[in-house]
Amino acid sequence: MRIAIDVMGGDNAPGAIIDGSVMAMKEYGAELYLVGLREEILKYLGEEYKKHQKVKIIEASEIINVDEAPVSAIKSKKDSSMVVGLKLVKDGQCDAFVSAGSTGAFLAGSLLKVGRIKGIDRPALSPLLPTLKGSCMVIDAGANVDSKPKNLQQYAVMGSIYMEKVMGIKNPRVGLLNLGAEASKGNELTKQSYALIKNTDVNFVGNVEARDIVSGVCDVCVCDGFAGNVLLKTTEGVAMALFKLLKNEFMKSLKTKLGAMLLMDSLKNIKKSFDYTEVGGAPFLGINGIMIKAHGSSDAKAVKNGIRQAKILYDNRCLDTIAEEIIKLGVENTDERA
Amino acid sequence: MRIAIDVMGGDNAPGAIIDGSVMAMKEYGAELYLVGLREEILKYLGEEYKKHQKVKIIEASEIINVDEAPVSAIKSKKDSSMVVGLKLVKDGQCDAFVSAGSTGAFLAGSLLKVGRIKGIDRPALSPLLPTLKGSCMVIDAGANVDSKPKNLQQYAVMGSIYMEKVMGIKNPRVGLLNLGAEASKGNELTKQSYALIKNTDVNFVGNVEARDIVSGVCDVCVCDGFAGNVLLKTTEGVAMALFKLLKNEFMKSLKTKLGAMLLMDSLKNIKKSFDYTEVGGAPFLGINGIMIKAHGSSDAKAVKNGIRQAKILYDNRCLDTIAEEIIKLGVENTDERA
Repeated sequence: MRIAIDVMGGDNAPGAIIDGSVMAMKEYGAELYLVGLREEILKYLGEEYKKHQKVKIIEASEIINVDEAPVSAIKSKKDSSMVVGLKLVKDGQCDAFVSAGSTGAFLAGSLLKVGRIKGIDRPALSPLLPTLKGSCMVIDAGANVDSKPKNLQQYAVMGSIYMEKVMGIKNPRVGLLNLGAEASKGNELTKQSYALIKNTDVNFVGNVEARDIVSGVCDVCVCDGFAGNVLLKTTEGVAMALFKLLKNEFMKSLKTKLGAMLLMDSLKNIKKSFDYTEVGGAPFLGINGIMIKAHGSSDAKAVKNGIRQAKILYDNRCLDTIAEEIIKLGVENTDERA
Repeated sequence: MRIAIDVMGGDNAPGAIIDGSVMAMKEYGAELYLVGLREEILKYLGEEYKKHQKVKIIEASEIINVDEAPVSAIKSKKDSSMVVGLKLVKDGQCDAFVSAGSTGAFLAGSLLKVGRIKGIDRPALSPLLPTLKGSCMVIDAGANVDSKPKNLQQYAVMGSIYMEKVMGIKNPRVGLLNLGAEASKGNELTKQSYALIKNTDVNFVGNVEARDIVSGVCDVCVCDGFAGNVLLKTTEGVAMALFKLLKNEFMKSLKTKLGAMLLMDSLKNIKKSFDYTEVGGAPFLGINGIMIKAHGSSDAKAVKNGIRQAKILYDNRCLDTIAEEIIKLGVENTDERA
């Protein structure tokens, strides 16, 4: 499998990105297309990999920064690592693209340069949120706002396929993020989406409340990108704040420092269970190519896991399954209207 | 000040509700109107308060349960503690109403039985979220969905008045919950609301991200009730999950148990800083009467603090200020249209 990697994107680029890529190459046999400034790549790439048959260096002279306006950056910086990487997928030279760079540019670029799977109205950014029981896909987490019920129906199908094929969860529980459990609850979007998803071939468990996502009440949490973003960012913010509070409290006295020492392993375990680098990046589902958005702060392990995700998506032909299921939806929808 | 209390609402009713009310009477001199089943009240009320001049028992023979459909419950159970309490405010016999009962019935009942302040389109449920720097009012947290920009503008004004008058924060920072900091970010609602709030006489700090609320980036977080509900419930869920994880980890071995013992006070401090009973209940702002929704799991202290809140709202004539400022908004809006 051939993977294009945006070597220049992310807080720890290019070092951690290259290290993670090489780890993935060794562990999963992925063929690497390292896209970025050749000089930089050569500086960080181990000697033994410079002429490796599974490592290609693809020169791209520009870099898109996180604070640039996404669409204009994609359009103007044609030789950026982001655009060159996306084009490798578009042209069929690579099977997947992984980037820890600007999320906005990644989303805009994927849409503009690679395009959607036929029948998909709006591709969705779909990160995995750690829960007490494993993880839950939040779909959509911010690629789209002002979504329509039909979009949410497609999210339900794509999320379900991902969790089954990539995460190995049989018959994934699909929940609709809402204010309460009753079908009549919510805003216009959720009320209409509820009815639509209920008649879709997924294991729909009904409305789920934000409070219960972290407890693992569902495997796929379907929502508009605005709400999904609030869910995701709040989880991140609260977890970070609590760890900060713990740290402050534990440094207060000799007694607390001793206590903290005894609990070091426990605290590490907890931090690990809230660590998104463990689950890899967020797939951008619905794009006609395997797109993985790694977190901006990704380290080598997170990049490696992102490539692992891409490989499972590829090996299981998930995009084909999505395309097939979405066509079925379309036919069903037409039938219903008839 | 005369306060009507729904003695029958909440997980710990009527005992904790009565205890908290009596505490508030003694501490703040509030005149209590205890609304509920007379027998139950007499069972839990201390002998010395049964003939107290500041304690009145108001018989109400019915109870609205949390799982009842709110509007029909309010309409059919005319002699419920909720409806009788609300009517005391409506009729001018009491200055405020406090309930830990069904949130839906509380919201519907306040609207149907007491009504809105003139000029307010949609009253907002406005709980205080604990942050690393104090607390942040989330307005609206679920009373309204599918809000309009004008609603959010009114939330901004009401939230600002509350945080200044009740919480003593000078020039409160008002933020708009959004996907990113730039003014152009977000959905149709937030884009239009941004422009409107920017031209409103509050200390508008622009868009705020869900991740930063807990860090204390603003004193008032303005949002549609759907997003506000996700923000609030996620915070609650993640905090609870983390405490659960900590507890599990700390009970694993003798070593961790010893460590936890040494850190007991620290852990209590942290739990306290995420404890909503400390800040009282959620005011339902925009109703033409002081309405405090205490958390369903309120203990006596939470009830006492809820009554304290009601008293500060009353003493500072907050509702009058809201009414005045909302009228000004109306005039400004009309001017702009002219």
